Amino acid sequence: MKQVIIVDASLKLPKGKLAAQVAHAAVAAFLTASNAARQEWLAEGMPKVVLRVEGPEALTRLHELAGQHDLPTALIHDAGRTVLPAGTITCLGIGPAADEQIDALTGELKLLR
Amino acid sequence: MKQVIIVDASLKLPKGKLAAQVAHAAVAAFLTASNAARQEWLAEGMPKVVLRVEGPEALTRLHELAGQHDLPTALIHDAGRTVLPAGTITCLGIGPAADEQIDALTGELKLLR
Repeated sequence: MKQVIIVDASLKLPKGKLAAQVAHAAVAAFLTASNAARQEWLAEGMPKVVLRVEGPEALTRLHELAGQHDLPTALIHDAGRTVLPAGTITCLGIGPAADEQIDALTGELKLLR
Repeated sequence: MKQVIIVDASLKLPKGKLAAQVAHAAVAAFLTASNAARQEWLAEGMPKVVLRVEGPEALTRLHELAGQHDLPTALIHDAGRTVLPAGTITCLGIGPAADEQIDALTGELKLLR
């Protein structure tokens, strides 16, 4: 089991802002998972990986795909109080779900360094 | 209601690693909160702030204080698979809880930029 959070790296968010958006995606996607998936993932120590894409289109496309595959997922729009225009898509959480289900959608993406 | 995640900025973590640790703290602290606190925070849009300290001592001290004040809290140790020695304290989540309860402990800390 794992969770991935995919960031729009083209936004070049400051790291505190980025971390808050990723945390938002992690909690929101977790809340859309089944109780069984949550418990299994928690028992495994909540493995998570942060990946990157360039631009919001890849995030909306992966969000649709994750939904079609019945994976827990949450697309995060910034509230626009600080550095971004309101409604900017910043990141996408997928999972917790089985590694292979998530890798089928995101296995080609690069790690955010 | 809000949640704060406080990072040991002296570790100078790469941003993907940092974001994963902050997400870990956000989920773990959320899970220690009461159901009432969770629901109230979710209804408000999960406000969260990422703050910084220098060194792990401030994190362990704030973790103790948060516990003494009966606030939901989770101290995050890295699993040590990648860039850090196993067991390194990376960050601390506090809340969701009332703003003033959290500010009483963390109001003097700086935002992570």
